[in-house]
Amino acid sequence: MKSFIEYPNDHPFSIHNLPYGSFYTNQDASSRRCGVAIGDCILDLQALSYTTFYPGVLPRDTFAGPTLNAFMSLDKDIWLVFRVQLQELLSEGSPINLETTITVSNAAPNVNAESHIGRRLFVDRLSEGTAMCLPCDIGDYSDFYSSLEHAYNCGVLIRGKEKAMQPNWRHLPVAYHGRASSIVPSGTPIHRPVGQRLKNKDDTQPVIEPCARLDFELEVGFFYGGQATKLGERLSPAQATDRVFGAVLLNDWSARDIQTWEYVPLGPFLSKNFATTISPWIVPIHALEAFTCPGYDHNPSLLPYLEDANNTNFDIPLTVSIKPAGSASDPKEGFTTISHSSLRHTYYTIRQMIAHHSTTGCPLKAGDLLGTGTLSAPGTEGYGSLLEKCEMGKRPFKVRLSRGEEVERTFIQDGDRVKFEGTVKSSDEEWSIGFGECVGTILAAIPL
Amino acid sequence: MKSFIEYPNDHPFSIHNLPYGSFYTNQDASSRRCGVAIGDCILDLQALSYTTFYPGVLPRDTFAGPTLNAFMSLDKDIWLVFRVQLQELLSEGSPINLETTITVSNAAPNVNAESHIGRRLFVDRLSEGTAMCLPCDIGDYSDFYSSLEHAYNCGVLIRGKEKAMQPNWRHLPVAYHGRASSIVPSGTPIHRPVGQRLKNKDDTQPVIEPCARLDFELEVGFFYGGQATKLGERLSPAQATDRVFGAVLLNDWSARDIQTWEYVPLGPFLSKNFATTISPWIVPIHALEAFTCPGYDHNPSLLPYLEDANNTNFDIPLTVSIKPAGSASDPKEGFTTISHSSLRHTYYTIRQMIAHHSTTGCPLKAGDLLGTGTLSAPGTEGYGSLLEKCEMGKRPFKVRLSRGEEVERTFIQDGDRVKFEGTVKSSDEEWSIGFGECVGTILAAIPL
Repeated sequence: MKSFIEYPNDHPFSIHNLPYGSFYTNQDASSRRCGVAIGDCILDLQALSYTTFYPGVLPRDTFAGPTLNAFMSLDKDIWLVFRVQLQELLSEGSPINLETTITVSNAAPNVNAESHIGRRLFVDRLSEGTAMCLPCDIGDYSDFYSSLEHAYNCGVLIRGKEKAMQPNWRHLPVAYHGRASSIVPSGTPIHRPVGQRLKNKDDTQPVIEPCARLDFELEVGFFYGGQATKLGERLSPAQATDRVFGAVLLNDWSARDIQTWEYVPLGPFLSKNFATTISPWIVPIHALEAFTCPGYDHNPSLLPYLEDANNTNFDIPLTVSIKPAGSASDPKEGFTTISHSSLRHTYYTIRQMIAHHSTTGCPLKAGDLLGTGTLSAPGTEGYGSLLEKCEMGKRPFKVRLSRGEEVERTFIQDGDRVKFEGTVKSSDEEWSIGFGECVGTILAAIPL
Repeated sequence: MKSFIEYPNDHPFSIHNLPYGSFYTNQDASSRRCGVAIGDCILDLQALSYTTFYPGVLPRDTFAGPTLNAFMSLDKDIWLVFRVQLQELLSEGSPINLETTITVSNAAPNVNAESHIGRRLFVDRLSEGTAMCLPCDIGDYSDFYSSLEHAYNCGVLIRGKEKAMQPNWRHLPVAYHGRASSIVPSGTPIHRPVGQRLKNKDDTQPVIEPCARLDFELEVGFFYGGQATKLGERLSPAQATDRVFGAVLLNDWSARDIQTWEYVPLGPFLSKNFATTISPWIVPIHALEAFTCPGYDHNPSLLPYLEDANNTNFDIPLTVSIKPAGSASDPKEGFTTISHSSLRHTYYTIRQMIAHHSTTGCPLKAGDLLGTGTLSAPGTEGYGSLLEKCEMGKRPFKVRLSRGEEVERTFIQDGDRVKFEGTVKSSDEEWSIGFGECVGTILAAIPL
């Protein structure tokens, strides 16, 4: 499969990927619409829907709105057929090319062509006038804690090796409800949160100050798609197979000192709800399925409702890089990669997470987001959070300034830029798929 | 102030209340629209907007949609002016009455009158053909834990008297993120949740079974209104004064055994996300303000960002009644009141809860819901949950069957109906305001 659009073999947005997103151009937020990324271009799906090139499998108005929710709520079979038709349309020999505009002759029969004539089907993704939005309206956001390595590492730091794992952890995918309103697309700057915390461990009087232990969490977020479930309805892992629309990188920014003070007994609240950054392009589940790998052995065995006959994960390598404050200004340069992990490091499959989420009958609908939790790999090179990497502040590490000098870090400093990436090559190394970037810069706290 | 609509002095929906809701008629869900309740009637606000009687303070399309979100996102001043104009319109001497329909002469200038001619302005609220929906699209739902008595009671049961209160509790309003997708209007039947739990305290292997300790939590939910806050924006308690649209009764159904097993370390998840019932009529903040009372003394004193110069709560008496399975079928009869509490029992004011919620910069927008947490009153007659009332199952209590017989309860049995109510009389006893009912019946679990 070869596209008429050119990109290198290691480009994450190949014709084998075709991630979906929502964008606008020329600072005109009112023009927000959906597109599919290929190479450094975006195929404008709304513009396409005004033409006869639009794949007939979808209702004509699927991309009429600014978000992907209507498309995501269709069935998995339809996503697949549409994807295959898009791949054909983007292949060599296609009737369209990068210069194609809407003309009288290619206008769709039901569309008032006049107002769209001359509009291009492709947009320059890297142009300064192109900006990404959240891909969909996110109804509810749940965040799991599904990496054995992360849970173990945190457990050792907090309770020691003997009691590292909590009794429930190997029996169910632990999760909490997150905050949907503070999910932002990659690139959104984030002010250091201010909150209550104890200055010293044995203090009884808290202070309110800027967070002193600001952390990232390397996660992947899966978007639920397909039919919504009703109140009381359960999904098995097998049924959940059809309800995964796709995935993004997710940074669950965490204020560790605020969390330690506030989280008893109801879990994290302000320490996690000030911002969650996601990469803006949703990689379709069908693109991920080319990179499955064996899932974890479950010992003790899981209760029957969690048994997943398809015990596979996705082996997409993930990296975390930090560009420390004071580095050169070039936005691409100056990053030090501090962690190598993979989406394979979830003890529970995404299908098990969805099945568990529905056990008590909680409704799920297209656009709901499920985070995997921090994805730490085995060993010392794959920590998915700074808490683990710096051992709660005890072991500083070094990152490179672009002029060659190194600086020490434990937690994130003002001006630091954190970048997640995840790209995987096909076995023949002819093509790749990936998430693109999930980046965020921490700005100084806004004074009280 | 006297309305041309008649109702008794103790009716919760007096002209001094005027709660807002979303309803439909004749099982035609497509006709869903907003209204204001008075006595046993609903004034159809969408129909009103097609007439010249519509108060001019609001944009004509405020009630064009099925939900209250557009209205809730306006400023508090506008809510008040609209409310005063509605009160005039519903008073004796009004140009409208219960029989008023849309006619050519009262049609609004900008409305295509023809399609609405003959439509009535009032709907029978108690008719079988009238049904209530959720009042608005609920973006995010946060649930606090703000009753000192409830926190103390639970603490004693779990940790004993000496360690009853957690160290953070008197310094910040503890809260967790809830699930918006499972919030349902009063009357929606709820299946007993099935979930993982330990059969016996010292077991290591969980079972998946229907919840054996199903509980309610008596709460009030406040709806955020007015301007949305941006990422990073903080509100002081004083600023938060303008961001409270109104309140509903809220039942945070809780599966105690599932909660005990799952909640370490990230808080409640499935144990609380299977259903949350709210009363469908939002009592406007301006109606509540007639019933303010002193708030709690804060000792130790709060950090400055939480200081509320207006340290007042709302003294609205609240009751919990249970109609046990096997009672007579009349939906109004057979309830035993098992608890008397009040909305006054929050240690933190709603303004402090909002201010705290915004500390780290989490965006809030119109339609977001903030639960107070279980409202337990001092003493043994005001428990806001069965956990407290039955001392974690150790002390059964009795409820009346309608035929005079009594049955024992600890937690909720299949077929039990739980009802919250809250009405307060004016000091001259001439009129009342109240929430109406928040009811739900527990059905048997759906087998796995």
